[in-house]
Amino acid sequence: MSEFARPFTRPPHPFLIEPLVRRALEEDLGRSGDLTTELLVPPTQSAEAQIVARASGALAGLVCADCALRLIDDRVEITVAALDGEAVQAGTSVATIRGPARALLTAERVALNFLAHLSGIATATRALVETVAGTKARIVCTRKTTPNLRILEKYAVRCGGGFNHRFGLDDAVLIKDNHIAAAGTLGIAVERVRTGLAHMTKLEVEVETLAQLEEALSLSVDAILLDNMSVDNLRQAVMLTRGRAVLEASGGITLESAREVALAGIDCISSGAITHSAPALDMALDFC
Amino acid sequence: MSEFARPFTRPPHPFLIEPLVRRALEEDLGRSGDLTTELLVPPTQSAEAQIVARASGALAGLVCADCALRLIDDRVEITVAALDGEAVQAGTSVATIRGPARALLTAERVALNFLAHLSGIATATRALVETVAGTKARIVCTRKTTPNLRILEKYAVRCGGGFNHRFGLDDAVLIKDNHIAAAGTLGIAVERVRTGLAHMTKLEVEVETLAQLEEALSLSVDAILLDNMSVDNLRQAVMLTRGRAVLEASGGITLESAREVALAGIDCISSGAITHSAPALDMALDFC
Amino acid sequence: MSEFARPFTRPPHPFLIEPLVRRALEEDLGRSGDLTTELLVPPTQSAEAQIVARASGALAGLVCADCALRLIDDRVEITVAALDGEAVQAGTSVATIRGPARALLTAERVALNFLAHLSGIATATRALVETVAGTKARIVCTRKTTPNLRILEKYAVRCGGGFNHRFGLDDAVLIKDNHIAAAGTLGIAVERVRTGLAHMTKLEVEVETLAQLEEALSLSVDAILLDNMSVDNLRQAVMLTRGRAVLEASGGITLESAREVALAGIDCISSGAITHSAPALDMALDFC
Amino acid sequence: MSEFARPFTRPPHPFLIEPLVRRALEEDLGRSGDLTTELLVPPTQSAEAQIVARASGALAGLVCADCALRLIDDRVEITVAALDGEAVQAGTSVATIRGPARALLTAERVALNFLAHLSGIATATRALVETVAGTKARIVCTRKTTPNLRILEKYAVRCGGGFNHRFGLDDAVLIKDNHIAAAGTLGIAVERVRTGLAHMTKLEVEVETLAQLEEALSLSVDAILLDNMSVDNLRQAVMLTRGRAVLEASGGITLESAREVALAGIDCISSGAITHSAPALDMALDFC
Amino acid sequence: MSEFARPFTRPPHPFLIEPLVRRALEEDLGRSGDLTTELLVPPTQSAEAQIVARASGALAGLVCADCALRLIDDRVEITVAALDGEAVQAGTSVATIRGPARALLTAERVALNFLAHLSGIATATRALVETVAGTKARIVCTRKTTPNLRILEKYAVRCGGGFNHRFGLDDAVLIKDNHIAAAGTLGIAVERVRTGLAHMTKLEVEVETLAQLEEALSLSVDAILLDNMSVDNLRQAVMLTRGRAVLEASGGITLESAREVALAGIDCISSGAITHSAPALDMALDFC
Amino acid sequence: MSEFARPFTRPPHPFLIEPLVRRALEEDLGRSGDLTTELLVPPTQSAEAQIVARASGALAGLVCADCALRLIDDRVEITVAALDGEAVQAGTSVATIRGPARALLTAERVALNFLAHLSGIATATRALVETVAGTKARIVCTRKTTPNLRILEKYAVRCGGGFNHRFGLDDAVLIKDNHIAAAGTLGIAVERVRTGLAHMTKLEVEVETLAQLEEALSLSVDAILLDNMSVDNLRQAVMLTRGRAVLEASGGITLESAREVALAGIDCISSGAITHSAPALDMALDFC
Repeated sequence: MSEFARPFTRPPHPFLIEPLVRRALEEDLGRSGDLTTELLVPPTQSAEAQIVARASGALAGLVCADCALRLIDDRVEITVAALDGEAVQAGTSVATIRGPARALLTAERVALNFLAHLSGIATATRALVETVAGTKARIVCTRKTTPNLRILEKYAVRCGGGFNHRFGLDDAVLIKDNHIAAAGTLGIAVERVRTGLAHMTKLEVEVETLAQLEEALSLSVDAILLDNMSVDNLRQAVMLTRGRAVLEASGGITLESAREVALAGIDCISSGAITHSAPALDMALDFC
Repeated sequence: MSEFARPFTRPPHPFLIEPLVRRALEEDLGRSGDLTTELLVPPTQSAEAQIVARASGALAGLVCADCALRLIDDRVEITVAALDGEAVQAGTSVATIRGPARALLTAERVALNFLAHLSGIATATRALVETVAGTKARIVCTRKTTPNLRILEKYAVRCGGGFNHRFGLDDAVLIKDNHIAAAGTLGIAVERVRTGLAHMTKLEVEVETLAQLEEALSLSVDAILLDNMSVDNLRQAVMLTRGRAVLEASGGITLESAREVALAGIDCISSGAITHSAPALDMALDFC
Repeated sequence: MSEFARPFTRPPHPFLIEPLVRRALEEDLGRSGDLTTELLVPPTQSAEAQIVARASGALAGLVCADCALRLIDDRVEITVAALDGEAVQAGTSVATIRGPARALLTAERVALNFLAHLSGIATATRALVETVAGTKARIVCTRKTTPNLRILEKYAVRCGGGFNHRFGLDDAVLIKDNHIAAAGTLGIAVERVRTGLAHMTKLEVEVETLAQLEEALSLSVDAILLDNMSVDNLRQAVMLTRGRAVLEASGGITLESAREVALAGIDCISSGAITHSAPALDMALDFC
Repeated sequence: MSEFARPFTRPPHPFLIEPLVRRALEEDLGRSGDLTTELLVPPTQSAEAQIVARASGALAGLVCADCALRLIDDRVEITVAALDGEAVQAGTSVATIRGPARALLTAERVALNFLAHLSGIATATRALVETVAGTKARIVCTRKTTPNLRILEKYAVRCGGGFNHRFGLDDAVLIKDNHIAAAGTLGIAVERVRTGLAHMTKLEVEVETLAQLEEALSLSVDAILLDNMSVDNLRQAVMLTRGRAVLEASGGITLESAREVALAGIDCISSGAITHSAPALDMALDFC
Repeated sequence: MSEFARPFTRPPHPFLIEPLVRRALEEDLGRSGDLTTELLVPPTQSAEAQIVARASGALAGLVCADCALRLIDDRVEITVAALDGEAVQAGTSVATIRGPARALLTAERVALNFLAHLSGIATATRALVETVAGTKARIVCTRKTTPNLRILEKYAVRCGGGFNHRFGLDDAVLIKDNHIAAAGTLGIAVERVRTGLAHMTKLEVEVETLAQLEEALSLSVDAILLDNMSVDNLRQAVMLTRGRAVLEASGGITLESAREVALAGIDCISSGAITHSAPALDMALDFC
Repeated sequence: MSEFARPFTRPPHPFLIEPLVRRALEEDLGRSGDLTTELLVPPTQSAEAQIVARASGALAGLVCADCALRLIDDRVEITVAALDGEAVQAGTSVATIRGPARALLTAERVALNFLAHLSGIATATRALVETVAGTKARIVCTRKTTPNLRILEKYAVRCGGGFNHRFGLDDAVLIKDNHIAAAGTLGIAVERVRTGLAHMTKLEVEVETLAQLEEALSLSVDAILLDNMSVDNLRQAVMLTRGRAVLEASGGITLESAREVALAGIDCISSGAITHSAPALDMALDFC
């Protein structure tokens, strides 16, 4: 798959991608197949088409588009002009596709749906990443992803230059306000977690005030999520922490506010919007 | 499921919803489960929480949230204050949830991800629907949906007051420009389709000019998609057609332009943006 | 797949066929495999065999037989002498198969089971189709299909020269007597449906009398199913309708009665028997 | 499940039945659900209906019908008037069903499709069983079953009073003519098999002549399939065998010829037609 | 697959192996893939490695290791120096693997886990087989296998020179003490079974005393399991039986006691330990 | 599920356990079901049985046994005398089971196979844990698990008092010798990883000498795996490290050597043998 992606964007293994694409094709083809194409287009007819970006942005999802086209007909050939993870300009071709006309027409919508959705996420991520360029702040995603597409959306975030937070509930511990309330105090919460915490699992706690931050720092956690803090407080948090924990800022951070947050010295800025509210990047399949 | 949805929104059958929700839970729980909650919260602790809309909009996805919560623990009880398909105001509670604290914490994110995503679609649909209120124009969705969620997104469109277009490639014929190019002429294309078209399947053709519209009308098709036409042309199209076919306007129609299109006398306005670019509706789970 | 089927019979996409064939092979091979063949036949032994029709009929299912053989061993080569959708004479070869002897012996029964079952349906369909030759009546199938094989059986009907009715409950509306009873009157039933009916979905109603037919016509439905009517009534129904709706005759129509029904001017004759009661067409694998 | 079946018909375990029924429902409901019913019938409406046999025969498949109805809505209640494995008379009720009207209408076709198909097989089996009544001959099925329904069709054969042959390629050895040809001689074939044959696996060989029968007997096999022998030869085969092996007659045995074959002293008569060519038993769901 | 296995070890068909290996890879790769390798090793780097046995034993599982490597990257090439079913010496190479370095690193653990587990079973089996060499006793496995790996473990037993008992509950009848208790007497139990027993299914009964053995022999069963009998009793059992049934000894038979049991004249010695308690054979992947 | 497990052993969620148990039941029941039981035991017969440990050890797998029994028949009732994670003595009852006799007989083997396998792992773990009691060393498992059972085996390790290492390749980074060779030096390897490493993912490196350890410490990694070091070297490693990284000892550590390793001051001792070579704990189902 690496022929479709920039180095180190780490596209998911084909056997993770293929079932998702296959299900999307089944969803579209249904039980009676592509009525229009099969009734209209002779099986021997060939075609060539361009995948064209109709808006500028960052590309993600060529690995899915390729998979969709080849699942429909493995004679389709794709030549890419850009890679997942690269920037594309509005109106430029992303890839050239040659093969049976039926295959191109039948796979078109599914291929574009993946590409537009994931490129939308990469584009929104890239915008934030560029906003904080030159600071040490990373843009990281959250678990606010579209159900059943998290593997692909985390990849799209990487294509946009962002970093991933924990994948799910099981690969890191994040103690939030409700957990603290359930345990009584942050101290008790951390203590309980430590009794069963594997040595290869990181521990983050969410705090809302500087006082809570100091308590968290005294507990030697790996990372601290600063929820909805003012930029002033974020600056103080950085000074208080002195590198003893990774600091993550979160809560309604936008393109407008991100740079100021980054300049406060924060390590990570997490954003739900880049996955749950990124508009699709307009992509089309133009026949030659 | 109908206890969570307004009449005639037609929520998908539970055995279509459940696998989607189950996979989303597996995606989040992974292989080691909810580390934080299982290490912190005793299994006997109970909790009560509110699902709260943090923004105003149209609700969709309670059927999924309910499913997620009960798959995690079937002792969870949900009392709804609003139904899928209804309007909600920012800051109001949508449902009250009672049950084991562990279950509420573990299912929270998946339940909200479905609810926020689908309510976002319902909200975007509702906005368009209200824009054309009082005209005969219906707002209809397209096949530009998030891969593997089309069943739910079509339902969200209905919750927003919209109508569905064909579900996929197999339940109706839609002859587009590339099909016409492949066949040679619109006449040949329609003729070929008719030889194999089932008597219960509708036939729509896409046209870009009034001349093409007249050709399409002469071929007695069921519906005609008017692609990217000016409002003037749309008005003329309506007059030319005189009810002989359903007229669907398509192509970059926005909240700003929709009403004028509707007033031209069009039957349907189709929008890809309501499914592929609707921002999530902000929803939260607040513990009492 | 089109190399095994006549043009426009529209064989299902391989990724719809393959899981059905794979499951059938798993069903036959079980957990310990083909004991007889694996103990008896050396892996290096080659063989050649003919698929022979032992009775005359219409062919359907080569796409499945091919799939079964190649799933067992992708070195198997098939050369077809007839295509799905063509007529075969008793005693003639349908295809020549060459490859590892083990593969031919192991896949034989599954390949033949598909071929015999689907050719049986194609043959029964063809018989009805030929009976009404020269009239405008189409032979159409129903939802009375063998569970989980509907995709293939609908294809077998097309191979026999028949047409498909709606695929299932979701791609067209058919208001039957029980629905009318539930709603109160046909008028109410149609009105309720219309409030939610998508513009690309057709609407058919079932009637048993000419009076009901007139009511149905007044409601501008797309198609009308004339259930168990006498040929006299069918003739009057055609006259009353004057092309305003597709007319479908149904109810115990046999090879004997079909032509008379067709000559009454009916558009479609639907038959459950062609899918639920067609005897298998006798097919064998003869080793050379 | 035993509440729906006669003792010792051995219905498959629910977790084998349920996936088959679930897939059949998904096949019929598709992606948009039961349009007609959901648009027409209020969710609160109740109904009662009878499953009625429109032809006389042997019943099989109530376990599937029950499963289909309850998968659609677990509030449906079924009261049976007959059991799988029992005879039913044309025009009599087999079961009474009460529950939400929507559920009855939606599940009707799938429930009937299973019931009609499997009862057709049970009925064909029962006819052969009654033909040989009073002899020691058992009617047994073959591997000529409908793909992916073998578990249910083997059960339907038992409901009809027949016995099962091996289930598939892996639970017994059957050396047929092509295997003998591949090995060289029957003696070599049996010798090869014996080197790897598990002590709990039976061995049957197919013979076409009395000379082959004698060779088979000298090899101490468990059972011998007498393929296409005349009744005279079958009688001699019985005398030659003197109980040293189970004798199975096969090859085009019909209702007309079966009794004579049985009277020849054969142990088993195998029939492919009872599974691959049994017409469906006409069953209906009549609303009260 | 036969290129990786000795003749007549009968490796399971690839479509039975592949899902098991695929799931194991998914289990290890999880959702974010092989972080270490993907971050460290360029996609273009090649590598060569040896699969080395670090202990002596019997080989089983190359068919799985091959499958794992090729599922990760189908450019990997494997040259085997030994086959499933052959003996290997500690420190010798079993296979040479060449391909992308990433693929070798990523598939390594899954490939070895299968190989070590199955070779452990083959080795334990081989030890018992060699202990009874020269007697007529076969070593057979039981149903005490690792859940979901029975197909592979039965194969590993064959690779070790052992034979398989019935695969599961459905391919042979084994009446054990609890069944006899439920029926009342052994005679009643056998009688009940015979009424429904297919002619291709074998019947074994478990006995604990010589008196029970005599009762079993009088009932003409196919095989008798002698549970936990002393060697003296086993000898008498052989004499009493005089070849009228297959005799199987069972119950805590070890490497130490097996030969004496075999010399008593027993046909089969069954062992649960060879599948449930065989330690893994130490295998490693050494990069060149 | 917590009613069958000690607090904080964290049994996997039922929807992770159930598919594994269901597949194991399907594996054993096959296609024709439990022939013996269904032919012998009337459906109305009840029974009571004890699950008895025939050897002393630590219990794990009751959650699976319970699932197996209830999947076969949900009327089965289980009363536990011990919990997953507790010690059991040879000859004592672990649970009492009441329900239909058929269900107990049919589910017996699958229930015991899970219980014996997982309790074997818990017992081997517990033995190591007790050996290092009073030191700070934790016993941790590896990725050397039985394919497709890792979720359960990791749980069994927790039941035995051990801790889990990373679950798979995706939830932590572990740089081993082959990775270092591929990168050139440890420094380059760590640098490459850091460019893409998420802030919630831990990083461990494997070293074999004290010199490598010092290099690793200079790179500020989270954990260091000391592979095959002598106890003397381990002691020096602890002194060199001074708490700057978690130290894990690995490589052929046995019950005999573990305590000395622990006393060297190591944080974790990892063992592959506890999962890949633990003999099953002998468990039986005794009917009352």
